[in-house]
Amino acid sequence: MKIQVVENVQKANDEIAADNRAELRARGVASFNLMGSPGCGKTAWLERTLDVLASEMTVGVLTGDLATTRDAERIEAHTPHVVQINTGRGCHLEAHQVRQGMRNLDLDALDLLVIENVGNLICPVSWDLGQEAKVGMFSVPEGADKPAKHPYIVLAADLVVLNKADLLPHVPFDMDAFLGDLASIRADVPVLEVSAVQGTGLEPWLDWVRALVETVKAPPEAAPLA
Amino acid sequence: MKIQVVENVQKANDEIAADNRAELRARGVASFNLMGSPGCGKTAWLERTLDVLASEMTVGVLTGDLATTRDAERIEAHTPHVVQINTGRGCHLEAHQVRQGMRNLDLDALDLLVIENVGNLICPVSWDLGQEAKVGMFSVPEGADKPAKHPYIVLAADLVVLNKADLLPHVPFDMDAFLGDLASIRADVPVLEVSAVQGTGLEPWLDWVRALVETVKAPPEAAPLA
Repeated sequence: MKIQVVENVQKANDEIAADNRAELRARGVASFNLMGSPGCGKTAWLERTLDVLASEMTVGVLTGDLATTRDAERIEAHTPHVVQINTGRGCHLEAHQVRQGMRNLDLDALDLLVIENVGNLICPVSWDLGQEAKVGMFSVPEGADKPAKHPYIVLAADLVVLNKADLLPHVPFDMDAFLGDLASIRADVPVLEVSAVQGTGLEPWLDWVRALVETVKAPPEAAPLA
Repeated sequence: MKIQVVENVQKANDEIAADNRAELRARGVASFNLMGSPGCGKTAWLERTLDVLASEMTVGVLTGDLATTRDAERIEAHTPHVVQINTGRGCHLEAHQVRQGMRNLDLDALDLLVIENVGNLICPVSWDLGQEAKVGMFSVPEGADKPAKHPYIVLAADLVVLNKADLLPHVPFDMDAFLGDLASIRADVPVLEVSAVQGTGLEPWLDWVRALVETVKAPPEAAPLA
């Protein structure tokens, strides 16, 4: 019976997530769900991203945290389209929270919706929010063993970002082990090495985001025949 | 009905946790539950701790991770009394897993049982394992805003450890904000600034652990009257 209840909760979530996805696609809004440990640098990386993208497109951000509006305040300096979602004791965002956040944004004005999940390498992975793509972020000071210890986020991610590369000279980090573990979990997952503090690695990341936005704006099946 | 089921799960956990606590106390084994983000340095700090304490007392370690036996392999170099608990997709340890781990240790040989929880700032906080004390670990590269964003671990902890102090010169970290947020959540919580990599801050920590061990070995009510 316990399992049945969990299944129902998950099923209800997935239905709302499907609605979110349909609505975002219908309005031509691309989206990704950014997941990673507390303090891996999700918000700092989004700030760097918005520094460039805000002049190219209109970006909305839903940012999840147990408490405080600090992330939304930081993002607000880069885009007015931001909503903070406070989960209380909740360890991840759920689709209904994203839906509520979407209702507080002018979706028709957006090209891209970024969903910054609650800092947690585990629970967010299991909850579909209706996003177009999932990004898994690790950071150098967490250590090279995180993909091996947290394989499910690697399996779920469309892209893995390794942040805080600027700290490589200052911490023990075996890059070969990190990449080897990633490849052993999923050989095909793309990996970007970046530093939010120094702004390195930004271009391939921005290209990935731009490509995501283009895909939703002009889905292949809608392209006119040559 | 959903809430009822969750309550039952929690109640079942708390009953097993109470059993764990009673058994550990009856055998004179002190214990603490070490909680913190993935990669905050829990295992590295335990290795430093065992470097000193292993010559003073017998320490057992239960170490939790979704996957791999890497932490147990590292701990095994310091004490033979170690069990890895793999939780699969589980985001925290539960009391029945600790009970199973205890069954695989020679409890009568131990003075101290360290329970290294799954790397997660959120979920472990809500699950009593039967430990005598709870330690909440943050780390400098996670940023100074983590206590404010994760107040429940601060409220639950008997001691807060800030690890990776060696990285203070290399990352943005507002120590006054960190300590101020901690104090605003719980003015009385003790905080230790340490570095597992450099071995700094070890003595006050070891004194805290030694005092915990003494408390369980010689509870005040059992002291002879003067």
